[in-house]
Amino acid sequence: MKKKAIVAYSGGLDTSYCVVNLSREHDLEIHTVIVNSGGFSAEELVSIEKRAYELGSVKHEVIDITERYYHDCLRYLLFGNVLKNDTYPLSVSAERMFQALAIAEYAKRENAEFIVHGSTGAGNDQVRFDVAFAVIAPDVEIITPIRDQKLSRHQEIEYLQSQGFEMSWEKAKYSINRGIWGTSVGGVETLTSRQALPESAYPTQLSKTEPSQLEITFKKGEPVALNGEKMGAVALIQKLNEIAGAYAIGRDTHVGDTILGIKGRVGFEAPAALLLIKAHHLLEKHTLSRWQQLNKESIATWYGTLLHEAQYLDPVMRDFEAFLASSQERVTGTVFVELRPYHFELLGIESKYDMMQSKVATYGEENNAWDSRDARGFIKIFGNQLKIHASLND
Amino acid sequence: MKKKAIVAYSGGLDTSYCVVNLSREHDLEIHTVIVNSGGFSAEELVSIEKRAYELGSVKHEVIDITERYYHDCLRYLLFGNVLKNDTYPLSVSAERMFQALAIAEYAKRENAEFIVHGSTGAGNDQVRFDVAFAVIAPDVEIITPIRDQKLSRHQEIEYLQSQGFEMSWEKAKYSINRGIWGTSVGGVETLTSRQALPESAYPTQLSKTEPSQLEITFKKGEPVALNGEKMGAVALIQKLNEIAGAYAIGRDTHVGDTILGIKGRVGFEAPAALLLIKAHHLLEKHTLSRWQQLNKESIATWYGTLLHEAQYLDPVMRDFEAFLASSQERVTGTVFVELRPYHFELLGIESKYDMMQSKVATYGEENNAWDSRDARGFIKIFGNQLKIHASLND
Amino acid sequence: MKKKAIVAYSGGLDTSYCVVNLSREHDLEIHTVIVNSGGFSAEELVSIEKRAYELGSVKHEVIDITERYYHDCLRYLLFGNVLKNDTYPLSVSAERMFQALAIAEYAKRENAEFIVHGSTGAGNDQVRFDVAFAVIAPDVEIITPIRDQKLSRHQEIEYLQSQGFEMSWEKAKYSINRGIWGTSVGGVETLTSRQALPESAYPTQLSKTEPSQLEITFKKGEPVALNGEKMGAVALIQKLNEIAGAYAIGRDTHVGDTILGIKGRVGFEAPAALLLIKAHHLLEKHTLSRWQQLNKESIATWYGTLLHEAQYLDPVMRDFEAFLASSQERVTGTVFVELRPYHFELLGIESKYDMMQSKVATYGEENNAWDSRDARGFIKIFGNQLKIHASLND
Amino acid sequence: MKKKAIVAYSGGLDTSYCVVNLSREHDLEIHTVIVNSGGFSAEELVSIEKRAYELGSVKHEVIDITERYYHDCLRYLLFGNVLKNDTYPLSVSAERMFQALAIAEYAKRENAEFIVHGSTGAGNDQVRFDVAFAVIAPDVEIITPIRDQKLSRHQEIEYLQSQGFEMSWEKAKYSINRGIWGTSVGGVETLTSRQALPESAYPTQLSKTEPSQLEITFKKGEPVALNGEKMGAVALIQKLNEIAGAYAIGRDTHVGDTILGIKGRVGFEAPAALLLIKAHHLLEKHTLSRWQQLNKESIATWYGTLLHEAQYLDPVMRDFEAFLASSQERVTGTVFVELRPYHFELLGIESKYDMMQSKVATYGEENNAWDSRDARGFIKIFGNQLKIHASLND
Repeated sequence: MKKKAIVAYSGGLDTSYCVVNLSREHDLEIHTVIVNSGGFSAEELVSIEKRAYELGSVKHEVIDITERYYHDCLRYLLFGNVLKNDTYPLSVSAERMFQALAIAEYAKRENAEFIVHGSTGAGNDQVRFDVAFAVIAPDVEIITPIRDQKLSRHQEIEYLQSQGFEMSWEKAKYSINRGIWGTSVGGVETLTSRQALPESAYPTQLSKTEPSQLEITFKKGEPVALNGEKMGAVALIQKLNEIAGAYAIGRDTHVGDTILGIKGRVGFEAPAALLLIKAHHLLEKHTLSRWQQLNKESIATWYGTLLHEAQYLDPVMRDFEAFLASSQERVTGTVFVELRPYHFELLGIESKYDMMQSKVATYGEENNAWDSRDARGFIKIFGNQLKIHASLND
Repeated sequence: MKKKAIVAYSGGLDTSYCVVNLSREHDLEIHTVIVNSGGFSAEELVSIEKRAYELGSVKHEVIDITERYYHDCLRYLLFGNVLKNDTYPLSVSAERMFQALAIAEYAKRENAEFIVHGSTGAGNDQVRFDVAFAVIAPDVEIITPIRDQKLSRHQEIEYLQSQGFEMSWEKAKYSINRGIWGTSVGGVETLTSRQALPESAYPTQLSKTEPSQLEITFKKGEPVALNGEKMGAVALIQKLNEIAGAYAIGRDTHVGDTILGIKGRVGFEAPAALLLIKAHHLLEKHTLSRWQQLNKESIATWYGTLLHEAQYLDPVMRDFEAFLASSQERVTGTVFVELRPYHFELLGIESKYDMMQSKVATYGEENNAWDSRDARGFIKIFGNQLKIHASLND
Repeated sequence: MKKKAIVAYSGGLDTSYCVVNLSREHDLEIHTVIVNSGGFSAEELVSIEKRAYELGSVKHEVIDITERYYHDCLRYLLFGNVLKNDTYPLSVSAERMFQALAIAEYAKRENAEFIVHGSTGAGNDQVRFDVAFAVIAPDVEIITPIRDQKLSRHQEIEYLQSQGFEMSWEKAKYSINRGIWGTSVGGVETLTSRQALPESAYPTQLSKTEPSQLEITFKKGEPVALNGEKMGAVALIQKLNEIAGAYAIGRDTHVGDTILGIKGRVGFEAPAALLLIKAHHLLEKHTLSRWQQLNKESIATWYGTLLHEAQYLDPVMRDFEAFLASSQERVTGTVFVELRPYHFELLGIESKYDMMQSKVATYGEENNAWDSRDARGFIKIFGNQLKIHASLND
Repeated sequence: MKKKAIVAYSGGLDTSYCVVNLSREHDLEIHTVIVNSGGFSAEELVSIEKRAYELGSVKHEVIDITERYYHDCLRYLLFGNVLKNDTYPLSVSAERMFQALAIAEYAKRENAEFIVHGSTGAGNDQVRFDVAFAVIAPDVEIITPIRDQKLSRHQEIEYLQSQGFEMSWEKAKYSINRGIWGTSVGGVETLTSRQALPESAYPTQLSKTEPSQLEITFKKGEPVALNGEKMGAVALIQKLNEIAGAYAIGRDTHVGDTILGIKGRVGFEAPAALLLIKAHHLLEKHTLSRWQQLNKESIATWYGTLLHEAQYLDPVMRDFEAFLASSQERVTGTVFVELRPYHFELLGIESKYDMMQSKVATYGEENNAWDSRDARGFIKIFGNQLKIHASLND
């Protein structure tokens, strides 16, 4: 009886090569699985399934994790206003981790003997796959033909042709990874430090120039309504990607450190992620205490950094999540935004927890909760340590 | 002999009231002083001086601290990419602190018996003034007529008229504070949480729509050339404010916590500050180590927070500055930017210290500094703790 | 009808003065209340009650908050291994805050018009009382005769005598505050920077010199058994204070910054707190991940600092507590300790979650989970960024 | 001509095997080098040299780095009060890193083709050696016979005997590593989580029981005099090890995370390190601002962690050092200590920068720098945000 190998299949050349090579040269029973975290359309999934069976997959599975991905991850990235290096919403980093987890769990459930992924030895994805597999399914062996054999595209195509597969594998100029939290665009210019991606490289093109306004309503930190219409968070994110994508909002280039210690650069478009994070952050400025804001910031930085670096399964991530969830108790209200070509403006907010509009004290108002004598006393004592320090100067 | 009082004079209604009131009712010899940190033009300074003498100042002094302000403060804000609450370059917070220090030093040199400032009891500025005065010139008494007497604009004008001063004191719709690190705009909408400032409220209006490119060259973190032309940092900032101001770049609204514990909101335009900080940050992403970036972030947040909160004289600020200066050792290179109406794009960088273009290893390159066997070993050990943790799960 | 004033009564001279002075000179109906958080014996409480009624209290209430104090506060201090400035378990800081909260809630329930506390204007306690009262019972006015009238002990005694109260008010050489999380000892030497408290100043004297061993069992971070005997946490802490107090364990002197910006110094003995914190910390070293330990440390420092500084009611404290509670999921096991005069030694631990004794990998064992080739690969990639950095050196 | 290999030689069995094996089986010209960072006596160094030549070393070099080790590393550990996991002064971690650096520089100077170290594949030392060698001397190849060949002690001895070396290689019960910043003791009990090292396992035995007092004088954070006698820091540390070692002070067991992700445990005695760190810390409590202390703590934790984890060459370490050095500006004064068997007590300090004894304000003094009205004002405003937050509760 053949041994069972689960291939994390994307429909692309690399994983197609894996399917054929492992089934024919190594006599494995290939099961293909694709994890959808919101980046694939129904048509794409059908076409990928078709190809999987053509290439020799015995069983093809589509695992949809979009809701779970939002609930277990995107939610916390939003609570933390996480933008890696102040720029990147971790679009691919987060998604790949959750795809890896779903495949590992599937392989364990299916009692597979092998898991196969198509990552090279140069990037972060191999780490996310290898780590998730080793932790979740420690008894399943990991096979990585692309990393080990280091074949060129040309050699892979030749091999597939030699096996009778005459598919067309046109190489796109840019490598694109679509997801609900953002789509990455790599290649040509991003391989340099000097060049920016051209307008045309982005999958979503500017199609609307007339400014328009938007209302995003949050409840305990989670988006619950768009322009007053209630909807689930996943649907809301997808809708927002459409609306804001038309303005070419949320594009940027991320430059960062890989887990392997070298630096990399990638372009992305993430209209919903950017809009939600910035709107959410503004609402927090009105509803959180100074100490919450100061402390959330470094916790969120670490949450994002460790998620990026394949440490999602470290127990500290659950501790960070507990902190972040607790901090959202009052992050409830509506944020008003104006969309314009390539950028947006946060207009203001409304919230019953708005600490700026409290009856106790309002900035600049006449009837203060304190008088000038209080202020003098406050400042006198507030400056005590500085005065003592200065007095010892000679 | 009359006792000498130094008035921190701005030319506005409040401090004009102080000059007249203190000289006439309290029989003090009034010396006026204005500190220019780059926000006043020569004409404005002349007109303010004229008014000071008219109102009864015995001696009027203009202290220019622009170079010192850059060297002792703005430089570090740039090293730290400091944007308070991820938005505000601390335009007024930083400037007011340095004005207060200069006045305190002047009062001490002049052996004044009193220092007078015109702040109210509601905001941050009184804290900056009071603390700087008490620490630098502990023997000089502080007088604050506006804070203590709580007069309305109308009452102040009536008093001045009763004393024979028939100046016109038209109230601007917005309160504006100009500085080289940004100009703040407060009033009307910023007193609400819901409304945004209208386009017309900003002192600098959009006057250029054709995109253009810009090169900013940094040496050890400091800006040294614009489009290849070498110039001093102060001149460069002023030039950049002109160029980028024409695109209405660098506008936003800051919502934050005051030192007094309440929240406030203010609009601002800070074209040079925003451009320099973002360009500088990009150069750092290419030239700093991962650990430098992670650690700089929280240090810079504290540096900005304590500066904002009138703690500039705390010795920890010198320690932060030592850290920040050390971190800039290799932040040398040129950043390429494209300016467009209301926003800008960072195109890329060139630096001899660019860690992305090293010969040792380049992301995605074929000839790696490691092979697939190394990668496997790395990931295996990298995942050790997660595997141990998971193995104890039952 | 007289207005009702709640006096936070301790039985001491200052608050006795308040009772008499306010009832006689200000015609208030005095209700006395004392909050026991574990520091008072039943006899002391009876004697204090007797005195309260003698002095003119209309109603005396004893509020016991010991269990709540443990559950809402001490538990988290233990989870965080909180020792202020690496020394002080916050014995008084934490207790005073919880006493203030209980009194504020009582005054609100009782619809009192005034709350009275006996703190001076020099220390931290006034801040804890004033803040708790203003937040919990904003409509109740705060009266502070000691702070406002600045009387000497002698003047207070004379006044009481003039009112017919001939009690003896012998001044103890040291000011002592007993609590279950530690007893503070202030005076004489602690007013200097140079002198240490003499042996005799400590309430608990060394009475046992023969070493003995102890087993403390924790479940999710909380102490649940002593030497194998299950008991509630409060009882366990009290028992531990007895056992370890006999060895004079847990004495030290705290030097720290007060909320008012000046520095203060106080001696303390806190046998149970020190033993529990150190034992708990050791158990964490075996059961928490590296990232948990690194992140817990700074969170705990802030939790302790803000608790000390009367910020217990800031919502960030609830967020810290959520983090800390989450981190204790596996802090379960037994710690073995040896007690000796003045110090103790942590011998070792046993825990089913001990990550040092996992089957996956054990330090120094022969059959590793990796081989030398893995180690080489790991280190090669681990050193990538340092190598790249060094290569750009010229 | 034979190729030159530098062996990091310790005189022990493992590196002796390397010398013989590499010279005889691989025909290399072996140069041995030993780095003394204060842990070896002159006699030991002579005996090790003798053995090196016997085994076939062509050239034996002793590199003394003690002063440099203090200046470039120990000084900063003291500035930061660094105790890993609140316990361990990084005795071996720091020393090994500096030995590795010295060997790498030597190999580079000598144009060696190989560097050889005797570490196994299980621990931290291999990482320190490999990383230092690869960064400092990237063109020199690293050879690690012990890691690669995984021989038992018995096999190594047999091999040496087969080559004519009949030395006696008695295995000590404990593995001991002596250094000026502490001596580690591993084996038997430290391989368990449950057992403590017996008294007899420690190299330095209790030899003095009569308490005695000690004065340590610091200047800008560095120790400069003992009992009033000026001496260099290295001499002072060595003297302190003698004096305090006689009291068996500074013993403990460290439980921590290795770079490889597993946990390890080791005993140590570090009398001088513990005494200096605790004395220095106390002096800081009197002379640093609250903000310096809060910020130093996390910076020092990271400095220690990254040093432990072989990241000494990361540029962030220079940034941390700049911060730490700056923070020591006023850490000048004398600390008084009492030594007793197994423990010590910090009695007090004297410093012209003591912020507790300033004329501006002293805790508990009558003539305060503020009055009760100031205190009321301070607390009123200090509590503003908490009041606003609470007022929005419904």
